[in-house]
Amino acid sequence: MVESKKIRVKEEDLREFCTRILESAGVPRNDAEIVADSLVDADLAGTGSHGVTRMSDYLGRMEQGLVSPVTKIELVRETPSTALLDANNGWGQVASERAVELVVRKARETGSAWVGVRNSNHNGTAAYWTVKIAHEGMVGICSMNTSPVMAAHGSRRPTLGTNPLSIAVPSSSGRPAVLDMATSEQARGKIILAAKNNEPIPEGWAITKDGLPTTDAKEALKGSVLPLGGPKGSGLAIMLDILSGVLTGASFGATMPRMYDDPAPQRVGHIFSAIDIEAFMPLDEFLARMDEKERETREGPPAPGFERVRMPGDGRHERQAERRTHGIPLSPEIHAELLRLAKRYGVPAERLRPHPRTITD
Amino acid sequence: MVESKKIRVKEEDLREFCTRILESAGVPRNDAEIVADSLVDADLAGTGSHGVTRMSDYLGRMEQGLVSPVTKIELVRETPSTALLDANNGWGQVASERAVELVVRKARETGSAWVGVRNSNHNGTAAYWTVKIAHEGMVGICSMNTSPVMAAHGSRRPTLGTNPLSIAVPSSSGRPAVLDMATSEQARGKIILAAKNNEPIPEGWAITKDGLPTTDAKEALKGSVLPLGGPKGSGLAIMLDILSGVLTGASFGATMPRMYDDPAPQRVGHIFSAIDIEAFMPLDEFLARMDEKERETREGPPAPGFERVRMPGDGRHERQAERRTHGIPLSPEIHAELLRLAKRYGVPAERLRPHPRTITD
Repeated sequence: MVESKKIRVKEEDLREFCTRILESAGVPRNDAEIVADSLVDADLAGTGSHGVTRMSDYLGRMEQGLVSPVTKIELVRETPSTALLDANNGWGQVASERAVELVVRKARETGSAWVGVRNSNHNGTAAYWTVKIAHEGMVGICSMNTSPVMAAHGSRRPTLGTNPLSIAVPSSSGRPAVLDMATSEQARGKIILAAKNNEPIPEGWAITKDGLPTTDAKEALKGSVLPLGGPKGSGLAIMLDILSGVLTGASFGATMPRMYDDPAPQRVGHIFSAIDIEAFMPLDEFLARMDEKERETREGPPAPGFERVRMPGDGRHERQAERRTHGIPLSPEIHAELLRLAKRYGVPAERLRPHPRTITD
Repeated sequence: MVESKKIRVKEEDLREFCTRILESAGVPRNDAEIVADSLVDADLAGTGSHGVTRMSDYLGRMEQGLVSPVTKIELVRETPSTALLDANNGWGQVASERAVELVVRKARETGSAWVGVRNSNHNGTAAYWTVKIAHEGMVGICSMNTSPVMAAHGSRRPTLGTNPLSIAVPSSSGRPAVLDMATSEQARGKIILAAKNNEPIPEGWAITKDGLPTTDAKEALKGSVLPLGGPKGSGLAIMLDILSGVLTGASFGATMPRMYDDPAPQRVGHIFSAIDIEAFMPLDEFLARMDEKERETREGPPAPGFERVRMPGDGRHERQAERRTHGIPLSPEIHAELLRLAKRYGVPAERLRPHPRTITD
């Protein structure tokens, strides 16, 4: 498959454009900025599946009354090192921004904290939130439960999301080490793409609706994604569903409506933890130890077939740097989608013009 | 391969026998009980690799002066919701018992907590500790770093342990849901067994010392185990090494001496977290929600080729129940090893006689 030529748009233009669209759709300016920043960050990081392509999905759900434009966050319970927030079916990013502020404040006060959110919605990438916590000199941990598209190990029915786990820690480089992994063998987006292109998928990615192994992408989409490494990824996805869904009072398992198919609020759950590095050792000492860990990892030496060994997050940071300079590459389809939103919400589209320093993709 | 007939020994006999051996070797009675309980629990749970087979390894290292018989735990730092302990090269289990007490007490007081341990040693299975926390009505999380036998994704050099992650949560059944996963594709023990039996190993388990894929178990043992699912397991192992090693002041990465090969203290790190369920919702409400999650998971329905779908920890609990009744099955080799320890440390061996209700294995 030949990829169509990308259109590069300046980061700050894309952010402001998305903010204005959301604002025009009824989201308060400050909240719109939070949502737009999380989407543009995903595009900068190269995880376009969680980027501005979500704008029309988000707005579609909001217009159907499935997501509240104004996020009224309620503090349900609180202890010195925990809190539980109810997002009242508002924006996942707005609730997560509040949760991160709270978990950082509590960790600063008591050393560490856990904060949960219930009755929320999609909040972008988990890494966006853990990196924010790492920038405060803390270990950041985040998980959430997502639409049930994955079968537990040995099951034929999708009762699990591909519930991600992200962990980030500060680095002396200013670019935190950051892991953000789905608990599925592969992203469902890759199966959707294969189905679109009439291509087969490798064995082990998915099963049919009858629970049989398949390499047919279309059958796979009617069936279930498989968990990473069988029982391990399955067990991890179950435990993350318990932490983000069962423990917070959010929906969990197969009862969560699917984002794209079901006209009902998803009642997503999020969970965050922060550990203040200074509660364990001076931050400088930790950063020096991280230097050592990063050096050892990157020195490899690489195995045959690999150019180099990376720390978790290296790819993300490299893409962000490149895209900050040269603009964010959008496919013509997504670019056109944004132009349609501009028209629909009466927002000028000049911010979507190609970046002057665009390079060939 | 035909397995040799197992000798079944009563749980309480095996525990008391191991306790007396350790005591006779110079470990204080109370500490010996803690270590013995963790080993026997692993044998009960069916994770024999972390069971009483470790007795001779542990004692061998202690006799070489690589582990202190008496564990002098020092509280290095403390905040309301964190603590850092130094195990001063004592027993991993003794330090972990103290860490678990501390993390539970702090979570009871402030809602949640994180506790780290440095300069420690092998502490058995991670699940043993998280289940203890779950029995207190809390979410338990535990990780640790282990001997460097695994290559980071893309590397040819083993700079990582198969650093496990365990999460346990209370269940109304009294048997917590518990995940305990190594971050490697497969346990190194399986490769050792294949090498012993001159059998090949599947592709994807390991690489040679030159970083090339191999199905030769002996070459694999000279090389590296591979991480679960490539970059995901690799990234998770790195982040867990950072949490348990870099953050605590323990050794980390390739600098940790190997348990079986290197005559130097390992300076292992452990990390624990506890979240008080009551900080989020009444425990009864949580348990009712867990009932629902467990029911949904176990109902599957199972995919073709599977008899049933399990919650994480189901196998562990089933084996424990069976072995509590019928005794713990020990291989003749391990049984003989324990008899040798009995002679060496002058401990009567009658507790190792076969269990009266022994069944054929």
